Amino acid sequence: MVLTNQELLKDLLKREDEFMAQKFYSETNLKFIVNDVHELESLSKYPKFEGYDEDSINMILDTAKGIAKDHMFPYFSEMDKNQPVYTGSTIKVHPFVRNFMKIMAEGGWITAPFPVEHGGQNMPMSAFIASSFILSAANYSQSVYPGLTTGALGLIFNYAAKELQDIFTPQMISGAWQGTMALTEPEAGSSLGDVKTKAVPTGKGYYLVRGQKTFISAGDHDGVDNIVHLMLARIEGAPAGVKGLSLFIVPKHRPGDNNTLVFNDVNCAGCYHKMGYRGAPIAQLSMGESDDCHGYLVGEENKGLSYMFHMMNEARINVGLGAAAISSAAYNAALEYTRERQQGRKITEKDSAKPQIAIIEHTDIKRMLLKQRAIVEGSLSLIIYTGKLVDLMSVTEGAEREHYELLLDILTPVVKTYPSEMGIISTSQAIQCMGGYGYTDDFTAEQYMRDVRIHPIHEGTTGIQGMDLLGRKVTMKGGAAVKAYISEMQKTVQEAGEFPELTGYAESLTGAVQLWQGVIGELVQFAMKGEIDRFLADSTIFLELTGIICIAWQWLIQGIEIRKQLQNKTSRYSSEFMEGKMITLKYFYLYELPGVFALERILRNSGGFTAAVDPIYFED
Amino acid sequence: MVLTNQELLKDLLKREDEFMAQKFYSETNLKFIVNDVHELESLSKYPKFEGYDEDSINMILDTAKGIAKDHMFPYFSEMDKNQPVYTGSTIKVHPFVRNFMKIMAEGGWITAPFPVEHGGQNMPMSAFIASSFILSAANYSQSVYPGLTTGALGLIFNYAAKELQDIFTPQMISGAWQGTMALTEPEAGSSLGDVKTKAVPTGKGYYLVRGQKTFISAGDHDGVDNIVHLMLARIEGAPAGVKGLSLFIVPKHRPGDNNTLVFNDVNCAGCYHKMGYRGAPIAQLSMGESDDCHGYLVGEENKGLSYMFHMMNEARINVGLGAAAISSAAYNAALEYTRERQQGRKITEKDSAKPQIAIIEHTDIKRMLLKQRAIVEGSLSLIIYTGKLVDLMSVTEGAEREHYELLLDILTPVVKTYPSEMGIISTSQAIQCMGGYGYTDDFTAEQYMRDVRIHPIHEGTTGIQGMDLLGRKVTMKGGAAVKAYISEMQKTVQEAGEFPELTGYAESLTGAVQLWQGVIGELVQFAMKGEIDRFLADSTIFLELTGIICIAWQWLIQGIEIRKQLQNKTSRYSSEFMEGKMITLKYFYLYELPGVFALERILRNSGGFTAAVDPIYFED
Repeated sequence: MVLTNQELLKDLLKREDEFMAQKFYSETNLKFIVNDVHELESLSKYPKFEGYDEDSINMILDTAKGIAKDHMFPYFSEMDKNQPVYTGSTIKVHPFVRNFMKIMAEGGWITAPFPVEHGGQNMPMSAFIASSFILSAANYSQSVYPGLTTGALGLIFNYAAKELQDIFTPQMISGAWQGTMALTEPEAGSSLGDVKTKAVPTGKGYYLVRGQKTFISAGDHDGVDNIVHLMLARIEGAPAGVKGLSLFIVPKHRPGDNNTLVFNDVNCAGCYHKMGYRGAPIAQLSMGESDDCHGYLVGEENKGLSYMFHMMNEARINVGLGAAAISSAAYNAALEYTRERQQGRKITEKDSAKPQIAIIEHTDIKRMLLKQRAIVEGSLSLIIYTGKLVDLMSVTEGAEREHYELLLDILTPVVKTYPSEMGIISTSQAIQCMGGYGYTDDFTAEQYMRDVRIHPIHEGTTGIQGMDLLGRKVTMKGGAAVKAYISEMQKTVQEAGEFPELTGYAESLTGAVQLWQGVIGELVQFAMKGEIDRFLADSTIFLELTGIICIAWQWLIQGIEIRKQLQNKTSRYSSEFMEGKMITLKYFYLYELPGVFALERILRNSGGFTAAVDPIYFED
Repeated sequence: MVLTNQELLKDLLKREDEFMAQKFYSETNLKFIVNDVHELESLSKYPKFEGYDEDSINMILDTAKGIAKDHMFPYFSEMDKNQPVYTGSTIKVHPFVRNFMKIMAEGGWITAPFPVEHGGQNMPMSAFIASSFILSAANYSQSVYPGLTTGALGLIFNYAAKELQDIFTPQMISGAWQGTMALTEPEAGSSLGDVKTKAVPTGKGYYLVRGQKTFISAGDHDGVDNIVHLMLARIEGAPAGVKGLSLFIVPKHRPGDNNTLVFNDVNCAGCYHKMGYRGAPIAQLSMGESDDCHGYLVGEENKGLSYMFHMMNEARINVGLGAAAISSAAYNAALEYTRERQQGRKITEKDSAKPQIAIIEHTDIKRMLLKQRAIVEGSLSLIIYTGKLVDLMSVTEGAEREHYELLLDILTPVVKTYPSEMGIISTSQAIQCMGGYGYTDDFTAEQYMRDVRIHPIHEGTTGIQGMDLLGRKVTMKGGAAVKAYISEMQKTVQEAGEFPELTGYAESLTGAVQLWQGVIGELVQFAMKGEIDRFLADSTIFLELTGIICIAWQWLIQGIEIRKQLQNKTSRYSSEFMEGKMITLKYFYLYELPGVFALERILRNSGGFTAAVDPIYFED
């Protein structure tokens, strides 16, 4: 069912009475980070990104804002309260999803980052990510429908044969078909090497697929006409483990004769009901129950996981992005509330006949707001930075490209995890600012906390990210990624040294980087001795340490930009905004950065003792 | 509607198929803490607690376990999924609530801690709390119905005239009437001095009450025949602020002629829908819409808040208890899951053809389980300890009593806050242990995280507790509470010194206590200079610091008991349990205690700068 324009208008008018206009991100801050801090316009000097000057990037952000405001936030609470329902053959989702897919397709959002020949606009990934931040802040669940199609299209364009592209991509681009990433199975979640879904060659241009998938986001729903799964499966006879996985296109309906669609034996077996993120249908799938599920091999046999990993960096940036966006919305909701809500008086005011004050005047509320702002805006800066690395990698070569790649490699687990884990804390603080009201569903904060909780889990849990960071990224190429990253942080420190207001922070960051290097030096010894269990025992703690320092670095980068503009007296931003940024920078260095001293102690003193704990000691 | 036994049995049988038996607390650990660590039996030497020997306390715990298992956990998920519904005049709750109130009344649970003349059993508060831990772990929302009646009865017995006692208490004791605490109003939450509900004297033995209350737990529902509110209101002409508040009994229905009940103009105006804690109806009330709401003064005029505060210590222990209980249930759910769930292999195992292992074998999972266990069992030890202080205060006099009172005063904000704030982290880690499944409502973890989120809010937010601790408790009586508390920690350190296995921990605790004293010394200077804003700016951070050290102390107390039993070779506990406790103690000192070094830095270096931040800098 597609709603008519008439119906949509009516619906929208009704809705306007029901919800108050809520700010879910700071437009000023986003533009500051995009245009001033990371200067995405600078990418336009590369032919690929020609024309993406500041005006055009701002126009992208403005357009995204319109979509978020008109077509996403109005459904934020509604999609949560009316969860997707499994019908027995598909999953019934909010009727607006169908319209939304069309809106996104017509606006070119599904293909924006692709080259023109694939219907795209060569939009820099960083700018695309910046616009996704707005959409995700408005309604994260809703944002994943088109986002997943974009991800699936990327795989098809990169690795699938031209004829497969011609069959599947036009309807995905038009928003009529949904793309998915179908990796997880009941017995293969974090351990992808255990994927059991089988693909048997037929010699007829397709494989017969049989198996089960679970936790597939947008894995089936009635908001589109077809679902196109990019699915990992094991070709009969392939090696065990990750080296035997191949990538297939497995559509729910396959093309038949005369432009018809034939059911492809991909059965929707159920839908999860979740703590949050309820607007998105998370499906269980069963393929080949009637031995009639055709799968089309993408690229070469047994290279499926490497193709998937090619998309993984971007997918993980997107998770961090989603978490930061949700935290942004929660922060703005808390900010609005604390400005309005009158409660109590200054602690030095003893006259209880005096009127109450807005709670934003209370110190503890200000501290909680600063914490949220520091997390949200620090995370966002890192997210845009890593997006820019993706862009730079795509237009450079040789040593320069390798430098960007190393940075992206080491920062990917951080940009995925810091916003996700801290998003729990940040949204929880938003509730706390609002007291009892924040715990009720009359306000949005509680939904944000439920929504954000998925992010430390999907696209690789925090534990997996920790092992990726310490076990793979830190040690890769003789520590080349660590070196590249430290050189960038040192550059920032040097630049900050030119501003008296920043030298204290620069020194603190230098100290933290040295602390981090010291910890690495100590831990890597265990790797060299082959004591892998010991080496990786506290990798999650190491990731937490790395995250704090990384965000401190991003805050110093922002501080430099502020000081520059103040020095040059050429800022387009209000003095309140600029002073607010300096205050938040100060907050981060005084309240968040000290966490490294606790984490360092853990890493140096724990002896990795948890590795040797026998599970029997959890018995009683 | 009361379900018949026949219906109940049918219902129970149906239910048994639906839910798996789940362990929600460690019986062994609870008994270890109750009997061995804090030796509640020792209270039986006082005449008031005569007969409460170990066997009888264990019997209480066993009985509570039976109730929890048979009458509470079966409704845990169901009460969440079917929230209370506002009918226009009352709130419809789960039909079993009515039966449950009867069961609790008949078992003597509503009055257990009261003296015999009030229908009680003189049960030590500590033993009552221990049994409440079991009930709250099984179904926190359900546990508050009888718990609130107990609290209200306590106030009535302590402060109300005999004739009021005779009118209201019998039906409360029988479970037919619900008791509540009605403090909060729309404009008076944290700021109770702003309570506006008015009481006008009539000279006829009652006052006419008019006003609104909100967030009243069990404030109206159809599981009882009447609601008895213990309500704060301001008598006409009373002073502004907290000094003008009086306490009233305000029933929904008041006694009329011939044993009839007359509607008392207490109108239920609505019911909140909440993130969690959904089994309990949180009501909005409007009194005196028809100018016919009678209120009966309890005790003296204008002393209402002091009466309320008399119950506040216990109420706050109960909040910490509820949080620890929920975290316990989440931990046990995670433990069960991680033992069953097969995923991945040892990181040193390269052969992907080998079978997968239970995820409890993975180091990061063990670390997360230890974190939860450390929080849950450390909190529980503190909770039972503070309960015992309540008991000791009730049977001692003079300096001894004062010592216990000082300890209770300083520990109350800690026992309220540490389990509540860490409960968010702990239940979140339970979800993380379970990965994607933990995020679905097919498992209980996500509900625990939603349920626990209320605890840092109700009965005084964490911010309020921080100010209470630093602004009131630390400075009271020239620092007497600090001194009393430090002397207790030093006693523990001294005792630990006798066991070589504990001396390292004893030294760490000594260091932490000195660090804490140093911070206090620095902060109190600001109080002495009259810089109150500066003094209290980081009181929440100070509370966090205090909490970690306090739980480290409780873990050392537990460690001493384990070492004693190992030395004497007389333990009734398994070696796995005892070794598990030692491992968790080790975990706490290596992974949680180091947090104090970060918090100390914040407290020493922040300059309390957030106090001076102008809210204008949150603009952009």
